[in-house]
Amino acid sequence: MADIQPFHVMELLRRARELEAAGRDIIHMEVGEPDFPTPQPIVEAASRFIANGAVHYTPGLGLPALREAIARFYHDRFGADVAPERIIITSGASGALMLALAATTNPGDEWLLPDPGYPSNRHLVRSFEGKAIAIDVGARQHYQPTPAQVEAHWSARTRGLMVATPANPTGTLLSGEALTHLHHSTSTQGGLLLVDEIYQGLTYGVESSTALAIPELGNAEDVFVVNSFSKYFGMTGWRLGWLVAPQAYVREIEKLAQHYFISPSTPAQQAALSAFKPGTIDILEARRHEFARRRDTLLPCLRELGFEIGSEPQGAFYIYANIATLAEDSEQFARKLIETAGVAITPGLDFGSHRPREHVRIAYTTHCERLLQAVERIRAAL
Amino acid sequence: MADIQPFHVMELLRRARELEAAGRDIIHMEVGEPDFPTPQPIVEAASRFIANGAVHYTPGLGLPALREAIARFYHDRFGADVAPERIIITSGASGALMLALAATTNPGDEWLLPDPGYPSNRHLVRSFEGKAIAIDVGARQHYQPTPAQVEAHWSARTRGLMVATPANPTGTLLSGEALTHLHHSTSTQGGLLLVDEIYQGLTYGVESSTALAIPELGNAEDVFVVNSFSKYFGMTGWRLGWLVAPQAYVREIEKLAQHYFISPSTPAQQAALSAFKPGTIDILEARRHEFARRRDTLLPCLRELGFEIGSEPQGAFYIYANIATLAEDSEQFARKLIETAGVAITPGLDFGSHRPREHVRIAYTTHCERLLQAVERIRAAL
Ligand SMILES: Cc1ncc(COP(=O)(O)O)c(C=O)c1O
Ligand SMILES: Cc1ncc(COP(=O)(O)O)c(C=O)c1O
Repeated sequence: MADIQPFHVMELLRRARELEAAGRDIIHMEVGEPDFPTPQPIVEAASRFIANGAVHYTPGLGLPALREAIARFYHDRFGADVAPERIIITSGASGALMLALAATTNPGDEWLLPDPGYPSNRHLVRSFEGKAIAIDVGARQHYQPTPAQVEAHWSARTRGLMVATPANPTGTLLSGEALTHLHHSTSTQGGLLLVDEIYQGLTYGVESSTALAIPELGNAEDVFVVNSFSKYFGMTGWRLGWLVAPQAYVREIEKLAQHYFISPSTPAQQAALSAFKPGTIDILEARRHEFARRRDTLLPCLRELGFEIGSEPQGAFYIYANIATLAEDSEQFARKLIETAGVAITPGLDFGSHRPREHVRIAYTTHCERLLQAVERIRAAL
Repeated sequence: MADIQPFHVMELLRRARELEAAGRDIIHMEVGEPDFPTPQPIVEAASRFIANGAVHYTPGLGLPALREAIARFYHDRFGADVAPERIIITSGASGALMLALAATTNPGDEWLLPDPGYPSNRHLVRSFEGKAIAIDVGARQHYQPTPAQVEAHWSARTRGLMVATPANPTGTLLSGEALTHLHHSTSTQGGLLLVDEIYQGLTYGVESSTALAIPELGNAEDVFVVNSFSKYFGMTGWRLGWLVAPQAYVREIEKLAQHYFISPSTPAQQAALSAFKPGTIDILEARRHEFARRRDTLLPCLRELGFEIGSEPQGAFYIYANIATLAEDSEQFARKLIETAGVAITPGLDFGSHRPREHVRIAYTTHCERLLQAVERIRAAL
């Protein structure tokens, strides 16, 4: 337990809430979820389903109809052929990450993780007595690991590599070519590649994509893909995601899923059946354009203020910035912004130990006027 | 992974579904969830909440209002004073069991578990590299472990004892006195006591109770209590439960909860705020009486058919029966009942390795007429 870190930003949030309780207005740019509501067609599907109260357990791997709907989505949107049998419905991407790691990690096994990265990954690895090995990634490499780094960090105990595209906290992508090269490295070593695509669909100026559409990866026996209804689909609170596992792991993961979760949320699954409908996608695409507008508004303003953004984010809803010229320490900086500017951002510490004191994550999960207001307040505070 | 067993009953269910697809009528007495729908006041609370789509993450430990509602429920119904800060909202009792075990189990640590018992417990222990040690429990001791057994199985590596009251698959209870004695054993050894109260409220001819109302246990630093909205509250598909942890563990468990789950389902939490309202409790108490009627109907019929019920169930919705005089092997017996009688029951194998071939679990999660029809069909098949 001593190795498991809390989300450090919670401390800041506590302070933010105190200030709010005392009447201060706080602009929240630390929040890792869309401010948009769940689209109405999804809500209405849930309402219709729960109305008569028949909300029972589903099969452990999820509703067959939802697994098929996701397979169709891969086919129609990305031209990827994914057998529904390989699609495991989970309690968020969190549940998918847990199942994939639990099924593959023996005590002492190592997983390579880019640093900075989503913090829960290393704690999940640790929970199953594995070892998370950080690969330091910087702006020059778009905060994504390179095959050379993968090979340099590989050991006899390495089980695989986890990447995310678009990534949290940096919003950077891996191209199909980059993924293919990474997969070449992991598979040559006999290891696994886990691709977290939770921010799929949230890309700006770039088409969204999936590792599953890459011929070498789509049906590979050593590639796991994680996804979620949380971000693009605006369903964070429903707790629903999925895992695409190689066929040989499905029966194994089913065993774990039953014992860990019994089954994923039934109302969420029924709701998600409406997530891929054209009417829903129209709503979501409009939101994507709004996120793009926010990014395009915020980026130049932050740069002007002295935030250094070494690799422009092309996805998710985060900007990862170096604040070394503005402050000595990102945590003190974040605390100061809350106190004097009423703006909440996330210090780098939550994402790893590669130069966290120089970095912050800024989320544009609030509308443009509010973002501009934040910029003016930060300017005044600096 | 080789140590993780599937739910064996799934095999039987596959066969049942085949037969159903071919037009056969199957009476399902293997199902471990109420046939009743989620009560309307709970459904309506969910509908009202989701209507505008604002379904975001909640705090990792759950909505403060729900933690307080549960604390009030403990107070009003059982006279137990439980601080809301100790109540952790989870993704079903499954999530509560996972968090409690993850937070307390080091590799090689042992947990004592009654056999027969809920199968997922030993697989969760195994997942965190602990060792599940079975305590064989028989009808004479009401399928519950005794302090003498706890002491006999205790080793230097034992972390604690898990019990359930009412228990699955046996429906038997632990009295307050029995719990106090078990706690005396575990705490004398310096270990933990985990009490699974998921079937709380579903007792027949006995008042329902909680370990938290026992003075020695209620505020003990070594007692965890697990509960759920699944069974009494008729909310299986919503995936919501809770864990009452000793205060000193709450911060630790909060860290894990964030990484494993981010937060529990928001619609489920909002719905559950209406679970303790008098109108809801009236509905649930009527169902409890109906479950009692079913038990009282089924028990004598099964006995008359030759099922031996050594300890009468006083809770949950299961009857655990010895079928040694009817068949050589409970799995073959269950298969025969599906094929020839169209009745699905669960063979003992799913609940452990203490005489599983002699036992079956029969769930009365279907209405009385249907139960009687099942009895007639079994009679004909025998
Ligand atoms: C990269 C990444 N993976 C996984 C998750 C888990 O999200 P969820 O469980 O809501 O799908 C998050 C949440 O922020 C994330 O940023
Ligand atoms: C004894 C016991 N504990 C825990 C659970 C988990 O149930 P849930 O996660 O739906 O609360 C079950 C389910 O059948 C059970 O029988």
